[in-house]
Amino acid sequence: MQVSALAFDVFGTVVDWHSSIAAEVTDVAARSGLGLEAGAGEAFAEEWRRRYGPSMERVRSGEIGWTALDDLHRASLDEVLRRFGMDGLAPAERERLNLAWHRLRPWPDSAEGLSRLRRRHVLCTLSNGNVALLVDLARFGGLPFDCILSAELCRAYKPDPRTYQMVPALLRLRPEQVMMVAAHASDLRAAAAQGLRTAYVDRPLEWGRAGERSGGLAPDDRFDVVAADFVDLAAQLEG
Amino acid sequence: MQVSALAFDVFGTVVDWHSSIAAEVTDVAARSGLGLEAGAGEAFAEEWRRRYGPSMERVRSGEIGWTALDDLHRASLDEVLRRFGMDGLAPAERERLNLAWHRLRPWPDSAEGLSRLRRRHVLCTLSNGNVALLVDLARFGGLPFDCILSAELCRAYKPDPRTYQMVPALLRLRPEQVMMVAAHASDLRAAAAQGLRTAYVDRPLEWGRAGERSGGLAPDDRFDVVAADFVDLAAQLEG
Repeated sequence: MQVSALAFDVFGTVVDWHSSIAAEVTDVAARSGLGLEAGAGEAFAEEWRRRYGPSMERVRSGEIGWTALDDLHRASLDEVLRRFGMDGLAPAERERLNLAWHRLRPWPDSAEGLSRLRRRHVLCTLSNGNVALLVDLARFGGLPFDCILSAELCRAYKPDPRTYQMVPALLRLRPEQVMMVAAHASDLRAAAAQGLRTAYVDRPLEWGRAGERSGGLAPDDRFDVVAADFVDLAAQLEG
Repeated sequence: MQVSALAFDVFGTVVDWHSSIAAEVTDVAARSGLGLEAGAGEAFAEEWRRRYGPSMERVRSGEIGWTALDDLHRASLDEVLRRFGMDGLAPAERERLNLAWHRLRPWPDSAEGLSRLRRRHVLCTLSNGNVALLVDLARFGGLPFDCILSAELCRAYKPDPRTYQMVPALLRLRPEQVMMVAAHASDLRAAAAQGLRTAYVDRPLEWGRAGERSGGLAPDDRFDVVAADFVDLAAQLEG
């Protein structure tokens, strides 16, 4: 198995959106004098994230034209604020809160694991996040990606086949020289359908301690690597 | 002047293609038992580079469809080998020599200057080199770019306006928040026409000691910054 490049899903796989968004929501509510019950920051984060799939589906279906994730997030945010009785949040605070997705904390193993993986592999993102979001995330978290690839570059959201095909095309590799790394089996299945190798990384806390899992593995899923985290992934690829 | 991101031209501005290509040509000729006169490595590098503009012009004019720079380089290489009596070079050695453009040495100040500039600015490439070439160059030279942007992403070569417009569009900035950094006035003039700020960095040795200059400044050129190298550029932007 000669893998030259690793392409990383980002939300949930590299960074912990759940606790990061919850903390920013709790913080801005307190600063703005808008009371939130205990645990409401987490519920807010989950509600916002649940609108992620349906908002991209509006683009995929052609209902709306290409719209970057920052703008989908911004539209969802207004709905979620209303639902949580935070309609009083000022426009500037809404803009700032929307950029919380640019400041998500990496999982504890992410920076170390990526640094180790980068010794032998080219590392790129392959995320539905737009380029500016991913650039900010990588800087914020000290994540040593060689290249920021985004659905935005093909104006189509994963799991559109063009997003996976873009990686070997731009890196001038054969599909089987690229390995998709994700905590979501659906992402890996779509990558495998385009000939990419696959590594599943378990992120049981993606939706928080009490939260739902984001799918898990199906009985017939066969990925090239199944790893506990990025340091384990590095060890397995070196082995 | 609120500049958030710096977009770097690469060949000649960040890396020294002239001495790097000359060294690889001299090396492969010796290894392959194809004699080259003293100084012929430099002449070969210059001849190869002179075909860069005309080869892209074939794409710009529509004579041929989109073709990545690696493939333009490869076609030019066969012509230059013939001209230098190196027709005997084996196919595998030709492929390897073509990738010399992925292993160009940075100027002595490049890595240090970029690291310093990166503290306050997002750093991206904006080069006619294709993505794979730029990723390899950045890894080879230890160049800390946050994002690899390439003409390949808009399938149009600089100075096409779309290449310069791509940078603020993907980074979600206004054009005047982006500064183009180049050792070539023509690149900066085209960037300024799209509203970007400009920094000229002097690279007098781009074509080697005895070589021609790549244009220099015209009497009416007015760039936002004129710097001796990247460390000087960092000092001026911090000042």
